[in-house]
Amino acid sequence: MALKVASRPLSVISEEHVEIIHQASLRILEEVGVEVLHDGALDLLARAGAEVDRARKRARLPRQLVLDALERAPSSFTLHARNRARDVQVGGDSVVLVPVGGPAMVEDLEGGRRVGTFADQVNFIKLSQRSRLLDMAYRCVEAQDLPPSTRHLDYLYALLRYTDKPLATMTLDTTSARDSLAIASLVFGDEEYVRTHPVILGGVNIDSPLRFLPDTVETIIAFAGSGQPLKITPFVMAGVMSPATLAGALAQENAESLACIVLAETINPGTPVVYGSFASHADMRTVAPVFGSAEGVLMEVAAGQLAKRYKLPHRGMGLVTTSHTSDAQAAWEKMNCLWSLTLSNVHMLLQAAGWLEGGLTASYEQFILDLDMLESMESFLAGFPIDEDSLALDIIAKVGPGGNFLLTDHTLSHFRMTARFSPLMDSRRYDTWQGDNASTLLTRASAIWKKMLAEYEEPPLDPGLAEALGEFVERRKRGEPLSRLVR
Amino acid sequence: MALKVASRPLSVISEEHVEIIHQASLRILEEVGVEVLHDGALDLLARAGAEVDRARKRARLPRQLVLDALERAPSSFTLHARNRARDVQVGGDSVVLVPVGGPAMVEDLEGGRRVGTFADQVNFIKLSQRSRLLDMAYRCVEAQDLPPSTRHLDYLYALLRYTDKPLATMTLDTTSARDSLAIASLVFGDEEYVRTHPVILGGVNIDSPLRFLPDTVETIIAFAGSGQPLKITPFVMAGVMSPATLAGALAQENAESLACIVLAETINPGTPVVYGSFASHADMRTVAPVFGSAEGVLMEVAAGQLAKRYKLPHRGMGLVTTSHTSDAQAAWEKMNCLWSLTLSNVHMLLQAAGWLEGGLTASYEQFILDLDMLESMESFLAGFPIDEDSLALDIIAKVGPGGNFLLTDHTLSHFRMTARFSPLMDSRRYDTWQGDNASTLLTRASAIWKKMLAEYEEPPLDPGLAEALGEFVERRKRGEPLSRLVR
Repeated sequence: MALKVASRPLSVISEEHVEIIHQASLRILEEVGVEVLHDGALDLLARAGAEVDRARKRARLPRQLVLDALERAPSSFTLHARNRARDVQVGGDSVVLVPVGGPAMVEDLEGGRRVGTFADQVNFIKLSQRSRLLDMAYRCVEAQDLPPSTRHLDYLYALLRYTDKPLATMTLDTTSARDSLAIASLVFGDEEYVRTHPVILGGVNIDSPLRFLPDTVETIIAFAGSGQPLKITPFVMAGVMSPATLAGALAQENAESLACIVLAETINPGTPVVYGSFASHADMRTVAPVFGSAEGVLMEVAAGQLAKRYKLPHRGMGLVTTSHTSDAQAAWEKMNCLWSLTLSNVHMLLQAAGWLEGGLTASYEQFILDLDMLESMESFLAGFPIDEDSLALDIIAKVGPGGNFLLTDHTLSHFRMTARFSPLMDSRRYDTWQGDNASTLLTRASAIWKKMLAEYEEPPLDPGLAEALGEFVERRKRGEPLSRLVR
Repeated sequence: MALKVASRPLSVISEEHVEIIHQASLRILEEVGVEVLHDGALDLLARAGAEVDRARKRARLPRQLVLDALERAPSSFTLHARNRARDVQVGGDSVVLVPVGGPAMVEDLEGGRRVGTFADQVNFIKLSQRSRLLDMAYRCVEAQDLPPSTRHLDYLYALLRYTDKPLATMTLDTTSARDSLAIASLVFGDEEYVRTHPVILGGVNIDSPLRFLPDTVETIIAFAGSGQPLKITPFVMAGVMSPATLAGALAQENAESLACIVLAETINPGTPVVYGSFASHADMRTVAPVFGSAEGVLMEVAAGQLAKRYKLPHRGMGLVTTSHTSDAQAAWEKMNCLWSLTLSNVHMLLQAAGWLEGGLTASYEQFILDLDMLESMESFLAGFPIDEDSLALDIIAKVGPGGNFLLTDHTLSHFRMTARFSPLMDSRRYDTWQGDNASTLLTRASAIWKKMLAEYEEPPLDPGLAEALGEFVERRKRGEPLSRLVR
């Protein structure tokens, strides 16, 4: 957890407007309600005081139900790793960094853009383990060479084998949610421990506008029921899945998060949740989502202000971009996200490294570029020392007007600690650079990820646990029911 | 003046540290002093109370002399344009945007990188005139096809003919400083008016560390003597021209600015000055300056805090980069500058569009990219409305859970005012983009600057004035002394 939270967060809307958005969301939940395609959840909500229309699968949530749920959710929690030195605090004074998750495609400089495989997934997990800044690994790319119904098992096994950082699932279906929790119980010893300690971060996406699909509900039931944390992500594309206006998009997105929190806190009061936002808007020329625009980051910062009002950890979209490739557009959109989010009230950046093309592609080189951007921001947020040694008034006097500081002892002993020298950035003379085939950030990044993989070392894993995990995965893959495999 | 100043500026050092830097700068001026390679200025400083060592050309400035000078400089001023509708306020609640100035080389997508010409300079002036966001034009690129001794005359003539925005000179030598002021008097009618109204922005660079070259001093004398504003730019490359440590670099840079203010305010109390900073540090692998790094922008933001303490308008470096080309590195370094500076206490961004390669090249396409970045930041700083219409609760209720907002009247009537659609950014499907030869931002930017030039219209200029200007320039080019041409 290297990035620190900004001490005086950026805000883009007034406190009064935060309150107006909050009240608008409560009205949406009370008057419009949410569609919940799950009868058990509708029953649960009805018992908790919601006004349920079973025929239309609609639940209208009274404001007190929402306010009570918000009271129950903790403002921060520790996500435990199998290596306790890797535990991360979610909420509080640091920003948890999690790499890209989800793309179907993968790209690298030599191999080009292609369908993602399990080997790619393992590579990204290894790179995430090696990265000093990333707090967790993630699915990074879909292993499309594996059967869809059991891919999650290979992913979880790889995650446990190749990294000792905390576990995160992808957005889940019912089966994978339950398998994830069973594996977490295997790793952390017993169900009772798991019930009382966050050990695996679950994620749910809401089917905007205002609809919960059966798998989403099952995941909430499974994770909240086991006391495991849920990151909540309404994915709103303003103009298609919400009003085009940012205020309306925000009010709806917030209502969706609140409904999810109501479900989780009704199932199990005290369930840790990460208040999520993932704001885009439709480019009306293509009806495709735009990521990392000024409007997108305005919504993200405003969502952080809402999270702060609710005293919840805030997950902001990470370094996202619409661009097809690691070009100026990608850098630009990602920098919009990086600057606005790290200066605002954000506690988790997910999709923090590797994302390209609206999340359709995970890029090896972009992964390295993004880590370097994050390191640069780490330097900015760290500031610089101001003391007798760094003021160096004696050196200024000694060198004097018109002099040169380059070869002074002070420069030689201080330059390394003063500025970070990015391995990606190039400051050579134009002709030297041309003579080096006008090498790009991508050629430099390509060498870096290969070196990181070559130097990768597997973290120690208890052999008995490794065997038990292997057996669990094999038996589940053969189709044995989960009920026969867990105590 | 479209960019507004951040309402709650970013700060990177504490108020106590601002004070420590200020005191350190006063000590440098008092104990080390500055080297002034100009006997007249040394006499002037001696009379004002400085301790002058004529043999070593050194002037030590007592702190009271510095503090008095700071009291005299105004906190803002209006820079008048020949078209009064184009007047700009320097200092206050907006950020004045000025394009690149200085590069010897020019680049465009088709012509490649080549030596800059007068035709290029005229093109950039026309593009600056056409730009909604740029408040002023600037020299942009050196006209290397013209004789060095009279280039400034062609530049000033072109500036007056092709734009009606306020005048800015480049960093000047003695001759060009005096010619600039004579031309300003021609344009604005009489010397008395010019003496009491800022009409041409002068610039001086300080020869760091702590040295004033004769031409710099002559420019200060000429501009301050005529009541014209001076932007002051210490160009400090930490590790070579100052200590490597940022605190030391900042204390020295600040001392240099303060010495310049002392000179200007001693010559003519009340001379408007723009407190400048232009922070870089040496990449110790190449001993070349790095622009737009985390460390560079930390110094820029801290310099803005000092300017605020002094109640002076702050000029921050613009969108600068070390990169050779309009790639991800350029976007990244420029975004560091854009975000940190526009969120901090900045009043003027100079080098705001077109700069590449550490200032060695002005790029047509990068000019367009930078303007688009600035527009995006304008959108971010503008925020978004939150009211009944934009909250759109009735639309959310009408569309309902699971619905689609795309074809609602609300979306169709609001999407244009909600989000800016950048002509540079691409959100098309990957295969569509590939089918379009994987067009880049540069190909799109290329079409835009050509269209802007094609649509350019010359602003009206009084025929009598045009003739007088032409005659002045011709006679000065023929070598007639300035004294014979001015009343």
